[in-house]
Amino acid sequence: MTGTVTVAVDANGADLGAAEVAAGAAAAAERGTRVLLFGPAAEIGATPDGVEVVDAPVSIAKAADPALAARSTPDASIVRAVKAVAAGEADALVSGGSTGAAIAAGVFNIKRASGIYRPALALPMPIPGAPILLLDVGANLSARPEHLVQFAFMGAAMSRAVLGVARPRVALLSNGEEPTKGTDDVIAAHEQLAARAPTVGDLEFVGNVEGTQVTTGAADVIVTDGFTGNIALKLLEGTSGTILGAVREAATSTPRAKLGGMLLRPALRRFRDEIDPEGPGGAYMLGLRRVGIVAHGRFTRRGFAQAIAVAEQAVRERAVERTHELLESAGALRSAPVSEAAASLGPSR
Amino acid sequence: MTGTVTVAVDANGADLGAAEVAAGAAAAAERGTRVLLFGPAAEIGATPDGVEVVDAPVSIAKAADPALAARSTPDASIVRAVKAVAAGEADALVSGGSTGAAIAAGVFNIKRASGIYRPALALPMPIPGAPILLLDVGANLSARPEHLVQFAFMGAAMSRAVLGVARPRVALLSNGEEPTKGTDDVIAAHEQLAARAPTVGDLEFVGNVEGTQVTTGAADVIVTDGFTGNIALKLLEGTSGTILGAVREAATSTPRAKLGGMLLRPALRRFRDEIDPEGPGGAYMLGLRRVGIVAHGRFTRRGFAQAIAVAEQAVRERAVERTHELLESAGALRSAPVSEAAASLGPSR
Repeated sequence: MTGTVTVAVDANGADLGAAEVAAGAAAAAERGTRVLLFGPAAEIGATPDGVEVVDAPVSIAKAADPALAARSTPDASIVRAVKAVAAGEADALVSGGSTGAAIAAGVFNIKRASGIYRPALALPMPIPGAPILLLDVGANLSARPEHLVQFAFMGAAMSRAVLGVARPRVALLSNGEEPTKGTDDVIAAHEQLAARAPTVGDLEFVGNVEGTQVTTGAADVIVTDGFTGNIALKLLEGTSGTILGAVREAATSTPRAKLGGMLLRPALRRFRDEIDPEGPGGAYMLGLRRVGIVAHGRFTRRGFAQAIAVAEQAVRERAVERTHELLESAGALRSAPVSEAAASLGPSR
Repeated sequence: MTGTVTVAVDANGADLGAAEVAAGAAAAAERGTRVLLFGPAAEIGATPDGVEVVDAPVSIAKAADPALAARSTPDASIVRAVKAVAAGEADALVSGGSTGAAIAAGVFNIKRASGIYRPALALPMPIPGAPILLLDVGANLSARPEHLVQFAFMGAAMSRAVLGVARPRVALLSNGEEPTKGTDDVIAAHEQLAARAPTVGDLEFVGNVEGTQVTTGAADVIVTDGFTGNIALKLLEGTSGTILGAVREAATSTPRAKLGGMLLRPALRRFRDEIDPEGPGGAYMLGLRRVGIVAHGRFTRRGFAQAIAVAEQAVRERAVERTHELLESAGALRSAPVSEAAASLGPSR
């Protein structure tokens, strides 16, 4: 795609408030993106250059049942932003509010792309030296083999379009490397991918990876069901936080250690940048007719600007169309009509 | 239990060889444990004081199908060690070979304790400041609600007997803290535990924990199915290894950083001791009529001595009997006869 890309952004739900999201939108607009910002105009204040603010003060970002709220609150900012994308007024969506609400509103209004069983949430994880794209991290709790197979191709297409991996190595997360390891669903998905993936070029199915291999660069895209994926991503975040916290604590425990920590700090800075959670811009909603990015509520303006940049890149790189082409050439599109809709969703992050 | 405790130890399968296991056995014997050591007498060499070596050179520690090998190789060292326990010649088992073989041989020969649906493998994880007992980590791939409920009580009893936690806080691993989060099986187990656990004293059911809370001390015992548990434990190991590796790399990247790393080292030593994988002595096989500990194949003599010490303590503390009492008072024993045996096992580590 050439020309200006328009991104609809929901400003509600960010921990630092709508004005922080607006500041991120302003930074993106400065780089040439057109931004439609849906949120409380009173909080956003002066409209930044290149950003069109649509006053949408109603927030469902903290709703107890986000999927229900998304269907029953037509004037919620996330629903209005999604509808702008569905109507073609914007090319992509960015939200920093509830992941569940974004997915439910997206499935309901933007709709699944043709031939997709279920949308998936894919998170690019900033692992030092070996970033991965992990999916599903919570759009669906369970996954049948055909879902896992689609997730593999959906993740590979996005990895290529947005993360710049020329030939993504795709793996299934399991309790052992052998093709016979895993639940029945994982074993069946393994068989189907082993039969299909090598024939469709530009992606490599590398089989199963174990938990120990998630952080060691064994694959670029790691596929699992949403229950396991959600636990895996949070374990990874939690463990690295705990370990770094323990190192930090050790580095303040004695005067000698304090001096050591101070001398070490510059060398650790590059590492800290590598694992910056705002770097990848947030999670990708895959399987819809349009691009959607869910930034983390904790993000600063930098993260929101990055989320908008990723959304724009996905549009320019035709990520949705390329996903369809890849699934089609792999014979992995769903042929039957899609009927089980948003009801099957139990998202959470 | 008073008097001498006898532990049957399988010396095959350890990465450092049978002589290293024998050295661990010798250290345990010095502390008063009687050890029956099953392994290749030629490799073990001179019999250490207090250790009785039973020449059992046949090893199935690297068998492709450990469960099958355990049933079809009666002279394998692990099978002979297990049989010694089943026959009452020893009070407990320690193995450093294949976890799958140990569990299969254990279920087949020692048998499940009465009222137990399925054995489980529980791993004490050395997390800085907040050690946890995680189960199941791979004895069964899937778990129905009644299995998860039993795992909760089995883990609590062992946490009290061996880890010295007076009132273990028990949690289910899920994708959110709310009781409505999780797969149908997790939600059903949550309901059953919420109804039962508070009435049986000396354990506290604290609900669901998310992946981020595994390393933050939110619970002492964390319960999940064997597929998720296996992935979780390996993710935890892998992530902490990757993060510590990155810190170490940073600490050698410049002369300044090297000096900093050197000054920091003594302060990090205590932390390193806290996360020493040999500290807890290995994983616990729960749900059998006798105590079983599976040490990690990578362990040195120190780890094997620790595994034997843990086995002895579990016997002295009547861990098996106490588990039964706890399950009984919670009304969580299986009443129907046990028929589905080792066939349901798909273990791996």
